[in-house]
Amino acid sequence: MRIAIVAPPVVPVPPPAYGGTERVLDVLARGLVAAGHEVVLFCTGDSSCPVPRAWVYEEALGVGAPGPVPELRQALAAYEAVQDCDVVHDHTLVGPLYADRFPWLAVVTTNHGPFDGELGPIYRVISQRVPVIAISHHQAKTAKGVQLAGVVHHGLDLDQFPVGRGEGGYALFLGRMHPDKGVHLAVRIARRAGVPLKIAAKMQEPLERAYFEAEVAPLLGGSVEYVGEVGGADKLALLGGASCLLNPIQWAEPFGMVMIEALASGTPVVATPMGSAPEIVEPGVTGFLGSSEEELVAGVRRAAALDRAACRRRAEERFSAERMVEDHLRIYRRVLAERRRDLFGAGEDAGEAMESQVPSAAGEVSSDRAGGGARAS
Amino acid sequence: MRIAIVAPPVVPVPPPAYGGTERVLDVLARGLVAAGHEVVLFCTGDSSCPVPRAWVYEEALGVGAPGPVPELRQALAAYEAVQDCDVVHDHTLVGPLYADRFPWLAVVTTNHGPFDGELGPIYRVISQRVPVIAISHHQAKTAKGVQLAGVVHHGLDLDQFPVGRGEGGYALFLGRMHPDKGVHLAVRIARRAGVPLKIAAKMQEPLERAYFEAEVAPLLGGSVEYVGEVGGADKLALLGGASCLLNPIQWAEPFGMVMIEALASGTPVVATPMGSAPEIVEPGVTGFLGSSEEELVAGVRRAAALDRAACRRRAEERFSAERMVEDHLRIYRRVLAERRRDLFGAGEDAGEAMESQVPSAAGEVSSDRAGGGARAS
Repeated sequence: MRIAIVAPPVVPVPPPAYGGTERVLDVLARGLVAAGHEVVLFCTGDSSCPVPRAWVYEEALGVGAPGPVPELRQALAAYEAVQDCDVVHDHTLVGPLYADRFPWLAVVTTNHGPFDGELGPIYRVISQRVPVIAISHHQAKTAKGVQLAGVVHHGLDLDQFPVGRGEGGYALFLGRMHPDKGVHLAVRIARRAGVPLKIAAKMQEPLERAYFEAEVAPLLGGSVEYVGEVGGADKLALLGGASCLLNPIQWAEPFGMVMIEALASGTPVVATPMGSAPEIVEPGVTGFLGSSEEELVAGVRRAAALDRAACRRRAEERFSAERMVEDHLRIYRRVLAERRRDLFGAGEDAGEAMESQVPSAAGEVSSDRAGGGARAS
Repeated sequence: MRIAIVAPPVVPVPPPAYGGTERVLDVLARGLVAAGHEVVLFCTGDSSCPVPRAWVYEEALGVGAPGPVPELRQALAAYEAVQDCDVVHDHTLVGPLYADRFPWLAVVTTNHGPFDGELGPIYRVISQRVPVIAISHHQAKTAKGVQLAGVVHHGLDLDQFPVGRGEGGYALFLGRMHPDKGVHLAVRIARRAGVPLKIAAKMQEPLERAYFEAEVAPLLGGSVEYVGEVGGADKLALLGGASCLLNPIQWAEPFGMVMIEALASGTPVVATPMGSAPEIVEPGVTGFLGSSEEELVAGVRRAAALDRAACRRRAEERFSAERMVEDHLRIYRRVLAERRRDLFGAGEDAGEAMESQVPSAAGEVSSDRAGGGARAS
């Protein structure tokens, strides 16, 4: 199959630091190529994912880029570049609406955010033409009125995650410095459990800094340490050395990437049972779920005794890149078949008739379709 | 005719301060009602334009609002609210693409910015379905590959502009504190002409402040004064008291609103012949155009002798709300006729068949369709 993956123009693929969506797209694109498919990744020119790429923006614009122009320009250029693909997997918001112009294209999208709030009405409209992939069953349940293509849990390139021995003698918080993530609760829980805590957290936005100053900094000291924002080898070492990941989230996070990264490192997860957590953590096997501080304290105490090999095994069984790729391919094939049926079931050779209408509006697409030699033969 | 006007969700209509587009939409909406038409203005809940209004955002989001969600949400809600209109005049960017879903609606849009740069490719694609109104002939000439509906110069509610006597003994700069506007040139020109200069300029963005500090502030003093950002009665008094508006713009501004405001106040305009300026200023009658500093200096010296009544007369003939409304109505009627021909020329009762597909995705539209009693009977 020839598959286009369209990324938003805000963060390179893979991301140099923060960027959950772009990290998943990197794993997916490489995994599809490894599975023998042709891929074109429409991203930004500063991306380094080793697959054939195309772009209109030389540099990623950053998450706060103002106004609708960046996504419009990205979508217009992307749909010009992907007309020869069998399936378009579009991760922008504007693109799936613009796809109305190309009825011969099989298009599917993924909602990486919550369906409540502002995204709900948008995905309801998008899904009238483009089916939407959910990233957890919990998220899917909140997708009222949205036509879903299915649920696909994220996966990891497990080779990048060495299994650690958990001998550091600390619990780990890893994520954004945000009240939704419950950093202040993690401190209280670790102290009550009598377990040292290392906090590795992104802290750049004003809200993140304000939360840190008001709610977290006063609790630091002794066995509780803020180690900054970590990535790469440092992050893997922190994960592998932790007795558990302590993830007392306070919102229904659609998918908690950090939890499967912990499992891949052999590290059990102690979390509140919100959002995707109950789909990731198997209590007593790969961690513990707790709704109260008491339960979470007990979970942290008991987690060190869990079998780390079992955590890694579950990650291999349920959260590998290969499984994520297979799940997507199944959906791609179905969306492609449905699109062909819609077009040709109408008794017209719609594909032929319509392809002549492809606009060449942007005419400014750059590409590295050689993909650094990584393109599947 | 029943006409929907869709505004972007970033500034109320009319704008409390800065907001050229929203100022025009206010004049247009009121003018259409005054001409006996039904109007619904889809804007933000904090708008006060005295016509029937509807909205999804209670408060305008500000010009720098991040990402595509605001325009998507605005467009989705707007097209849900305007299905009973004959014509939709859409001033967003996302809306005219989303209009693909509603082939029975006659939709037209206006580009308030330049066609060069990022907007060009977007309007080329938009205009394959939705014709685009240009706001000056110069702007229209740069619209390569864009299907235009016509050119409509902006107009003013002239009753709001008293004719001043120009007896203040100063030239006036009025606009943003930005290098494109040539504020530093205005200072040099006024000094060389021996005419005092008052500078009334918006200065809020970091770039505006930096430009002021580096290029303008060192030139102030003596007969050259920065009077801050002015609006309302203060602005009208400044305009009416000036011997001329000095507008040495350094970019091809699609339409220079401030120039017609000056003419409405009886004040001649001295400007560089860029963008819309040659379409607004008639040299020797309503001002002077000059490509060099010398020519502009000469223009400032000579402008005080021009007939201020002639300036006002030209504004009444060429830049009134009534003329702008008539121009738009002519385009609305043509777009509506073309749409009906496209639909019914195909031999199907497309309107009937398609209306059943109207999605009710947003379901969250608020409205004040009573419009403060201003709705035409």
